[in-house]
Amino acid sequence: KPKARKADINSINVYDMNEITASANARENKEEVLILSPIARFYPEYWKNLLKLSYPRNLITLGFILPSTRDGTKIHRDLRAAVQSVQKGPISERFADVKIMIQDTGLSSGQSEKQRHEREVQKERRSKLASARNALLFSALGPKTSWVLWLDSDIIETPPTLIEDMTQFNKDVLVANCFQRKGEKLVPYDYNSWIDSNVAKELASKMSKDDILLEGYIELPTYRTLMAHLHDENGDQKTLMRLDGVGTTALMVKAEVHRDGAVFPTFPFYNLIESEGFAKMATRLNYEVFGLPNYLVFHYNE
Amino acid sequence: KPKARKADINSINVYDMNEITASANARENKEEVLILSPIARFYPEYWKNLLKLSYPRNLITLGFILPSTRDGTKIHRDLRAAVQSVQKGPISERFADVKIMIQDTGLSSGQSEKQRHEREVQKERRSKLASARNALLFSALGPKTSWVLWLDSDIIETPPTLIEDMTQFNKDVLVANCFQRKGEKLVPYDYNSWIDSNVAKELASKMSKDDILLEGYIELPTYRTLMAHLHDENGDQKTLMRLDGVGTTALMVKAEVHRDGAVFPTFPFYNLIESEGFAKMATRLNYEVFGLPNYLVFHYNE
Ligand SMILES: Nc1nc2c(ncn2[C@@H]2O[C@H](COP(=O)(O)OP(=O)(O)O)[C@@H](O)[C@H]2O)c(=O)[nH]1
Ligand SMILES: Nc1nc2c(ncn2[C@@H]2O[C@H](COP(=O)(O)OP(=O)(O)O)[C@@H](O)[C@H]2O)c(=O)[nH]1
Ligand SMILES: [Mn+2]
Ligand SMILES: [Mn+2]
Repeated sequence: KPKARKADINSINVYDMNEITASANARENKEEVLILSPIARFYPEYWKNLLKLSYPRNLITLGFILPSTRDGTKIHRDLRAAVQSVQKGPISERFADVKIMIQDTGLSSGQSEKQRHEREVQKERRSKLASARNALLFSALGPKTSWVLWLDSDIIETPPTLIEDMTQFNKDVLVANCFQRKGEKLVPYDYNSWIDSNVAKELASKMSKDDILLEGYIELPTYRTLMAHLHDENGDQKTLMRLDGVGTTALMVKAEVHRDGAVFPTFPFYNLIESEGFAKMATRLNYEVFGLPNYLVFHYNE
Repeated sequence: KPKARKADINSINVYDMNEITASANARENKEEVLILSPIARFYPEYWKNLLKLSYPRNLITLGFILPSTRDGTKIHRDLRAAVQSVQKGPISERFADVKIMIQDTGLSSGQSEKQRHEREVQKERRSKLASARNALLFSALGPKTSWVLWLDSDIIETPPTLIEDMTQFNKDVLVANCFQRKGEKLVPYDYNSWIDSNVAKELASKMSKDDILLEGYIELPTYRTLMAHLHDENGDQKTLMRLDGVGTTALMVKAEVHRDGAVFPTFPFYNLIESEGFAKMATRLNYEVFGLPNYLVFHYNE
């Protein structure tokens, strides 16, 4: 690596951003992928699934952000052990880089699935999560990154070709459909990927600018079209649909979209926050947002 | 540097973000400062002034973004020569790091001061500039940065203690007052630092969400309180005022504010874009924005 050497000596690094592509042929074009996971619990199944991904590891950088709580200390230990067993192994099997950030988010990570989803706690929780995502993004996104894959730390099963599959559509923002396995049954998990409705727009227009319109709560039906409900087990996995809101369980974003200023709003932005607000921001920046209703990833089942 | 060595071998980097301070004692606390300048023209006076700054260079990283036009090629040559003469010199005088990004903004940099300020061209121009600022920020902001100093490339004179002076107030966002020297006279230059007015709020409320309310145009008086007009030559340099809009000529921002998601909107955000939109975003994120009416920096005089 003569370039890195040169940088070491003179401490000058020149990056021609026009040379960074994000294309349908990510692998052939040697496009660098940054996988980002905020992590409140370390699931060995998540790590095992990550190691099964077929995209070349020398093109993958991993970025984690974890809370500086006592839980965080345990996550750190587990995560570090997992990372080191790979990064101390054969060079050809190592990831290009791994960055672990420790940050005080003030979030309590000991919440159960039910507690997390209480409507009243969602606003604060997701606002803090948005803040953690932004901090992670700002610290880990490099000048040569082509794609950012947001992958929640409780996604325990994806196709091994996840990166190849999602980049091939060459979309600015693309989200997979996130389900849970309950025995033999497949149950929808992530309700953040949706198409807006007139009812939701009505509701939002009557809200204060500081309020948010959450999805998936029976007390406040929005009549948005939820991607989770459009899954067709026999349908084409390549089916695309345009979306207005997205979740982050497995979300592929062209790095350019973030670089242009699309982040995760921590405050109500068009009455949306976090990943749903991100989709709105991306749209305001004239990027297109899509989902794959028949392409599944699986969430841990508590 | 045993830490960097370790990273080289294992490619694991751990950053405890709680250890990064941004305090009134930046120098004593060895706080890292990132100086960011989008650059459409290289002024030797800018570089000379930069070299006079008294803050320790081993705590300073420089980040530049320049257009990939023919002008850009010339800027690159001049900038690189300037940077190399420092970075090849004695280690004790080198900057910690220098990053140069080259990006296609589609901006024509050959515009005169008068052309740039035509109201019709401002929206597109400033939107593209916002995009360049975000790209620069995303590529250059590291996990250990405490402060970001936005310094326009045509700022040719500041106090050498600029960084010490601006950090000592320990403000989230703080902007200096930017003037031009015309012979013996000091003339206000930057009208982007202001306190909002009821007239401006009225005007904005009647605008389409996609429109922007610019400052400094006689055809559309906003009656905002302009910091440029509050300069008092005999006043205390430490006088602070709270602001709603800021310019970027010399703007000190706690890195945390950016990491939390405050960027430069490229689309109308509360009818504001670029640096004025950034101030609004920071405020929405509950950060405080201040200006120093009697602390001057000087803009090149075409
Ligand atoms: N760093 C950090 N990550 C968190 C925190 N809370 C949740 N996460 C992570 O953020 C992602 C989404 O959160 P999760 O609780 O799974 O959301 P849900 O499945 O939508 O209820 C997961 O990867 C979590 O591990 C937190 O307090 N700090
Ligand atoms: N990379 C890049 N920087 C630019 C471009 N246009 C302006 N700038 C820089 O952005 C900053 C502000 O622009 P400037 O034209 O000075 O704005 P004004 O003084 O407010 O009219 C300066 O540092 C410029 O050098 C551009 O097209 N590309
Ligand atoms: Mn989850
Ligand atoms: Mn200027």
